[in-house]
Amino acid sequence: MAQATGGDSSVVRRINSAATLRALRGGEVLTVTALMEATGLSRPTVEGVVDGLLAEGLVVETTTAEGEDGSRPRGRPARRFRFHAEAGHLLGIDVGVHRIRVVLADLGGTIIGRAARTVEEGCEAEDRLERVRATVSETLRRAQVSRNSLWGVGVGTPGIVDTEGVVTLSSAMPGWTGLDLGGRLGRSFSCPVQVENDANLAAIGERWKGVAVGSDDIVYVMAGLSPGAGSFINGRLHRGFGGAAGEIGALHLLGRQVTPENLLSTTGTPLPPLDEAAVGEVFRHAAEGDRTAGEAVDRFVQRLIHDVTALVLALDPEIVVIGGWAAGLADAVPPLTAELQRLCLRMPRVELSALGGDGVALGAVRVALDRAEHRLFAVEHTGSARA
Amino acid sequence: MAQATGGDSSVVRRINSAATLRALRGGEVLTVTALMEATGLSRPTVEGVVDGLLAEGLVVETTTAEGEDGSRPRGRPARRFRFHAEAGHLLGIDVGVHRIRVVLADLGGTIIGRAARTVEEGCEAEDRLERVRATVSETLRRAQVSRNSLWGVGVGTPGIVDTEGVVTLSSAMPGWTGLDLGGRLGRSFSCPVQVENDANLAAIGERWKGVAVGSDDIVYVMAGLSPGAGSFINGRLHRGFGGAAGEIGALHLLGRQVTPENLLSTTGTPLPPLDEAAVGEVFRHAAEGDRTAGEAVDRFVQRLIHDVTALVLALDPEIVVIGGWAAGLADAVPPLTAELQRLCLRMPRVELSALGGDGVALGAVRVALDRAEHRLFAVEHTGSARA
Repeated sequence: MAQATGGDSSVVRRINSAATLRALRGGEVLTVTALMEATGLSRPTVEGVVDGLLAEGLVVETTTAEGEDGSRPRGRPARRFRFHAEAGHLLGIDVGVHRIRVVLADLGGTIIGRAARTVEEGCEAEDRLERVRATVSETLRRAQVSRNSLWGVGVGTPGIVDTEGVVTLSSAMPGWTGLDLGGRLGRSFSCPVQVENDANLAAIGERWKGVAVGSDDIVYVMAGLSPGAGSFINGRLHRGFGGAAGEIGALHLLGRQVTPENLLSTTGTPLPPLDEAAVGEVFRHAAEGDRTAGEAVDRFVQRLIHDVTALVLALDPEIVVIGGWAAGLADAVPPLTAELQRLCLRMPRVELSALGGDGVALGAVRVALDRAEHRLFAVEHTGSARA
Repeated sequence: MAQATGGDSSVVRRINSAATLRALRGGEVLTVTALMEATGLSRPTVEGVVDGLLAEGLVVETTTAEGEDGSRPRGRPARRFRFHAEAGHLLGIDVGVHRIRVVLADLGGTIIGRAARTVEEGCEAEDRLERVRATVSETLRRAQVSRNSLWGVGVGTPGIVDTEGVVTLSSAMPGWTGLDLGGRLGRSFSCPVQVENDANLAAIGERWKGVAVGSDDIVYVMAGLSPGAGSFINGRLHRGFGGAAGEIGALHLLGRQVTPENLLSTTGTPLPPLDEAAVGEVFRHAAEGDRTAGEAVDRFVQRLIHDVTALVLALDPEIVVIGGWAAGLADAVPPLTAELQRLCLRMPRVELSALGGDGVALGAVRVALDRAEHRLFAVEHTGSARA
């Protein structure tokens, strides 16, 4: 892993710093000698790089010393260094219809704080933004992390989001369509803010810390009153030509003219639209053995199966992850698997999400972390920098 | 566009040859001086390269001479050269349930021959292969092209095809599942044979010479008794994790338990399975104004709309191309567009295929041509060859 040597241009220094940080990124605690081995750099170069990283606060010297390192001179222990993951932080924000969730992580990707607030589905855009800001402040305060320590913020929202962070279409929340969500939230931070569709982020979250780790071909289905899907194809998030891929809210209308409000009704009259509390009641009653509620949930599962099967037929993923309301419905897996086996030429693996309500916020953290890691670890294609 | 100069290694020669051919690939007729300008190579280098390409038969000297080239010395016209597209040929083969089609092209991609044979749907695999070989021989004979002139063969088939050219699953044709189609047909040729799913090839064909030229995000739907879809995502063919993407034959079963044999029946009893002739009758009667037949076609269009809408919701393509039986159904476009507008957050462009029955075979030619062009024009990443 020989890196750039010689010269003293800032490019060469950056490449050598990145190589050194990469050697430490897994949480290793390494001596200068070990860093020389890992990077192929000379002792003076490593020492210079480490001094720079210490000054930047990206590396700290550990005092744990006394290890198994027999090569160090007696009396004077070899200096040991580790990546200072706490040198910066990332926020992931899930702006949902009924709940705002915030997750805080350090530069090593360790989750060190979270907070959530409920919000009325009829809440106006300005109030909702205010609620987001309050939840962010609470998260930072509780974790005792300064806002200046933030390197990046990821934000998830229902609907279609353009590359500038503007919500071009979202029917789920009042005043949301046309909102410059990235710009509005950006005023609260001095770091970059990146906005992405919520189901896309949940797929990213599952691939990072959920049941889809290691897979490049994923369909994630967020089951709910307004279901959405996020997918990875060949290791790339699939947004679609206009950012609308996976907006399957209307998929159930094909053939079955029924909405979740009807499917989940136990009284013959539809549930109020988007009333998550009423839906929660039905799920609870079903879990307690109530037969009418159980039948309602069965109808809901049938719809889920319909949506998932259509996505699997279209995309042929390696793995299907069921999230949202249905993440807890272990009973839904056998009939879903049976229907997929009946209709699909190739069976994907089917898993329930195990990230609880955190999937979107975790995906948002991952998006912000990707950018931070690029800044820390990436060596651009700069052939001439090899001096 | 400076290319490799100096040295005489075969790599350098190959790079310079590729650069020279690229300058001629559009059909241009160029002098040595014009080739020097286009490639940045010196006169002796261009002359050496051209001599080599003349010897290989990849370039020919044209005798048309007398052009607008005022710079040539009196009495002795400048030599002019063009790419010899006829130096090699490509075959595209569409092995369908009811018909085998073969298309022949030269290295410039110009179609110079075609042939087709009908085949019984119950035809066994060996007989079907024999029919393919006969259609190939007929195509070559009629075009007076030698089998030795073939640089590559592309083959399309219904079902799932693995990377080795084995049909891992195809229920449409007897004995087809498990068939090493690439290996079996390969015995008839000394050039590479590449096998691909038929709907995927049709999508490739539409992107090459059809209504999807220039688009990187395409859903192609082959409407028929056993419908399939092929899609491009970010300019890449999307095969799916196991090669089963777009195998939507069962999509209509979601919600509507009806098959095309029922939908297209005008008598109350289903049509015989896969009886394309009976289907053709219904389409013909509908076109002639028969009301019962018209209603049957309407039902078929409803199913098409169902399939297309599910694919659009999942993938959000730039363009949807309707092929197969429905390619001629201009009446299907307004209701399809209306349904997409009702259900999709972003509208794709909707087009009927204009390639007639040739789409799959054209896509197969394109696949073979890609490989040939790589051989002719590609310059590998060989930084050291610039010496």
